[in-house]
Amino acid sequence: MIIDLNCDMGEGFGVYRLGDDAEMLTVATSANIACGFHAGDPLVMHQTLTLAARNGVQAGAHPSFLDLWGFGRRPIHGERPEDVEKAVLYQVGALLALAQDAGTPVRHVKTHGALGNLANEDSDLALAVARAIRTLDRDLIFVVMPGLETERAGERLGLRMAREVYADRAYADTGNLVSRKLPGAVLHEPEAVSARVLRMLEDGAITSLSGRRIPTRIDTVCVHGDTPGAVAMGRRLRDDLAARGITLRPMAEVVDA
Amino acid sequence: MIIDLNCDMGEGFGVYRLGDDAEMLTVATSANIACGFHAGDPLVMHQTLTLAARNGVQAGAHPSFLDLWGFGRRPIHGERPEDVEKAVLYQVGALLALAQDAGTPVRHVKTHGALGNLANEDSDLALAVARAIRTLDRDLIFVVMPGLETERAGERLGLRMAREVYADRAYADTGNLVSRKLPGAVLHEPEAVSARVLRMLEDGAITSLSGRRIPTRIDTVCVHGDTPGAVAMGRRLRDDLAARGITLRPMAEVVDA
Amino acid sequence: MIIDLNCDMGEGFGVYRLGDDAEMLTVATSANIACGFHAGDPLVMHQTLTLAARNGVQAGAHPSFLDLWGFGRRPIHGERPEDVEKAVLYQVGALLALAQDAGTPVRHVKTHGALGNLANEDSDLALAVARAIRTLDRDLIFVVMPGLETERAGERLGLRMAREVYADRAYADTGNLVSRKLPGAVLHEPEAVSARVLRMLEDGAITSLSGRRIPTRIDTVCVHGDTPGAVAMGRRLRDDLAARGITLRPMAEVVDA
Amino acid sequence: MIIDLNCDMGEGFGVYRLGDDAEMLTVATSANIACGFHAGDPLVMHQTLTLAARNGVQAGAHPSFLDLWGFGRRPIHGERPEDVEKAVLYQVGALLALAQDAGTPVRHVKTHGALGNLANEDSDLALAVARAIRTLDRDLIFVVMPGLETERAGERLGLRMAREVYADRAYADTGNLVSRKLPGAVLHEPEAVSARVLRMLEDGAITSLSGRRIPTRIDTVCVHGDTPGAVAMGRRLRDDLAARGITLRPMAEVVDA
Repeated sequence: MIIDLNCDMGEGFGVYRLGDDAEMLTVATSANIACGFHAGDPLVMHQTLTLAARNGVQAGAHPSFLDLWGFGRRPIHGERPEDVEKAVLYQVGALLALAQDAGTPVRHVKTHGALGNLANEDSDLALAVARAIRTLDRDLIFVVMPGLETERAGERLGLRMAREVYADRAYADTGNLVSRKLPGAVLHEPEAVSARVLRMLEDGAITSLSGRRIPTRIDTVCVHGDTPGAVAMGRRLRDDLAARGITLRPMAEVVDA
Repeated sequence: MIIDLNCDMGEGFGVYRLGDDAEMLTVATSANIACGFHAGDPLVMHQTLTLAARNGVQAGAHPSFLDLWGFGRRPIHGERPEDVEKAVLYQVGALLALAQDAGTPVRHVKTHGALGNLANEDSDLALAVARAIRTLDRDLIFVVMPGLETERAGERLGLRMAREVYADRAYADTGNLVSRKLPGAVLHEPEAVSARVLRMLEDGAITSLSGRRIPTRIDTVCVHGDTPGAVAMGRRLRDDLAARGITLRPMAEVVDA
Repeated sequence: MIIDLNCDMGEGFGVYRLGDDAEMLTVATSANIACGFHAGDPLVMHQTLTLAARNGVQAGAHPSFLDLWGFGRRPIHGERPEDVEKAVLYQVGALLALAQDAGTPVRHVKTHGALGNLANEDSDLALAVARAIRTLDRDLIFVVMPGLETERAGERLGLRMAREVYADRAYADTGNLVSRKLPGAVLHEPEAVSARVLRMLEDGAITSLSGRRIPTRIDTVCVHGDTPGAVAMGRRLRDDLAARGITLRPMAEVVDA
Repeated sequence: MIIDLNCDMGEGFGVYRLGDDAEMLTVATSANIACGFHAGDPLVMHQTLTLAARNGVQAGAHPSFLDLWGFGRRPIHGERPEDVEKAVLYQVGALLALAQDAGTPVRHVKTHGALGNLANEDSDLALAVARAIRTLDRDLIFVVMPGLETERAGERLGLRMAREVYADRAYADTGNLVSRKLPGAVLHEPEAVSARVLRMLEDGAITSLSGRRIPTRIDTVCVHGDTPGAVAMGRRLRDDLAARGITLRPMAEVVDA
């Protein structure tokens, strides 16, 4: 059994840095690289691409709503899907160009923050993202949430997809994440996080907070790099997966397996 | 004899618009499209690409310093060439992605405002821009100022180049533009502008304000779209060129001729 | 009978301009000046303050969500009221400082776009805006929508208030504006706009699209300056009000009357 | 003998943070608070004002060129002094409004980064900043560099001034800072930094790298909070000053002494 660990990276801007990318590059096997709309700038993007390549970590694009101040976490309603499509094209295109210079390929696209949350619930937004991916490169992998609109959009357009689960976030019965504002939404104990991921992988299903079982193929597990204890949590998960004989491989290898 | 008329376009942002692109698309044969750093956003860029294609106007990238408020006209000193290179990669890459969606090729790169001015005088900056172009696509044409650092950088890297003159700007003896702040720097009379362009084309040389003659091949003439009377000036130039039997063709055709 | 006509102004940014402020300053008696978050910059703000003063037009602040690209029209959910309060303090404070230099007072505060729409429906947001106003200057007038949360917040905090109606926008039964996306939401005929405003003033009530009558005191009428025909519509309204013997006065005089 | 230690604070933006403000508030006696142009946002500004007040640290404004990406460190040439004046009014006004809410006064203004560097050499820029301060509040203290244009501008306009020296930066013979790019420009050893500050205070003069002595009154010493070891360096300086019987007091008390 093989699995990918993906992590958001390159989320600095100008003089600012966020998270410990150097450490997380030794934990994760795929990196979602911010593209300048919620974080990231040409320098940070290039540096992150280079470091990912050096660590054998697969690079992907992490496009967002244009919202540096809100870090892409503010739900911006009323964006037209055709506009979101162009914003995704812009961001992924920018990363592709920097990756060409860094000499490393971009293999996947994962939407960030509020854009991801809204796309999981809104088929038009999800299709907009999927169309942008298809236009740029049919081989790009679309990171999707099992059972939600992103997965449906990927299926409809025949994209390569990586089904993703979150290591430290609780699920609602809909298969979407429980809002961070609600109690129990975020898990903080490395041991509990690790145990839950193993359960999902072995069960081939997500289990919601209320106990609902949502069967799904799982290609990649999202680990966070910007929370205190993120590195420790990631390392624990890596070790526990190894102990069960589960091999970590970059997303593209898992998707193709 | 053939020549290209290039014009900056797509310089809106959000609700804002600048210049009369619809009209200038009937005047110019090549469009320099803002890439989001001094103007432009994914929607405006896509729309400009689409309109250019519909009008048979060649699309090119118009990268800039990151300076929306100053419209890329503020000279920002102290940018490291390697950072400028990445900023150009980012912007051109973003436009390439949108062009892929719009189904029209991007054929040239022309630096905007202060970035262009500084690159014309600074070989490291000029080489940084040239390297970004070479990395992305060796067939992209680099729009350069005859006799200045941009031309030397293009030569050194073996890029395709379009030598450019400005229709309505006076030249210093260095071959660079006279600062807008000095008297006589900008020509406003369509007739005088037109006559001067014809003289340069027929003479195969730029003539500076003081009368110095700078021989050069001329591939493209820059016309402005954002000044009052820009459209009238452009039309007059088109008509006068036609009357002399000079044919207008998109930049790539002129460069290859 | 006296009434104020208020109009959004100073909505340029850098090289960009929006609407014909010079003309609208001859139509309106109060100006809502953008404060840099959806539009406006220190130069535009100062210039607009100066021009308003010269035309005898009352200056007010027009704070917004931080969203230049979306022109403050994108509903940004999840902003905490205490954060909105600080964002309003920041923007109004900036305008107050520039007004001190321009030698003209700032007399009112009207929220812009999506911030206004959300505040009209959300008592916490409305109170956040009202608290910011009270902190800065108890004499500042809060422009509110009759019957909605902004009015209630103003009442609760004992603020001076200007009850506002829109000249060219249809009303829902709730007393809020009908979304621009729905048919009939925006009136375009100067004659119809003018007739409707007169009816509201004489009736002392807003009438919704479906015919519901919402009685209210009316202090100010919002006219738009950024739509085609805005100036003509404003002039027509001015003339028709004059013909009925209704006098136009800046907002503060109407509120105190 | 009394002296002030000033430190830049509140230099976060959105999710980003820079430097250890909590620690530096126990070291410094005055805080220069970023106002949103190079760093800072309404939330960070309010929080910094509140924390400064709680620690008995004097609050001041730290205005900058509009340049978030470059953190206000990029020299932007060609800004007109009258535009800089308005940008300073905007930023200080915004901070004054937030300070009104936080219930703590703003007592000084210190320009940030490239704006400060340019103003120290350019009398028009220095006067622009000084005029903005005078307009807002004649009691605001202008933090100036002894012998340079900022000091002359403050003198000319009759402003209250705090003459500042830098704890960890070498001086050129002009009295300006040696560029960070040159060797020896930045001191890193807490002991050496501390010894040099004591020498300047006791000598009543700045000594340049080459040994030139520039006599001056010294009101405040700038300590940095965003470098590694900043807190240790600041503590050491505090202790060494105390050991010599030099009392630390907020800037306004030193200026009035």
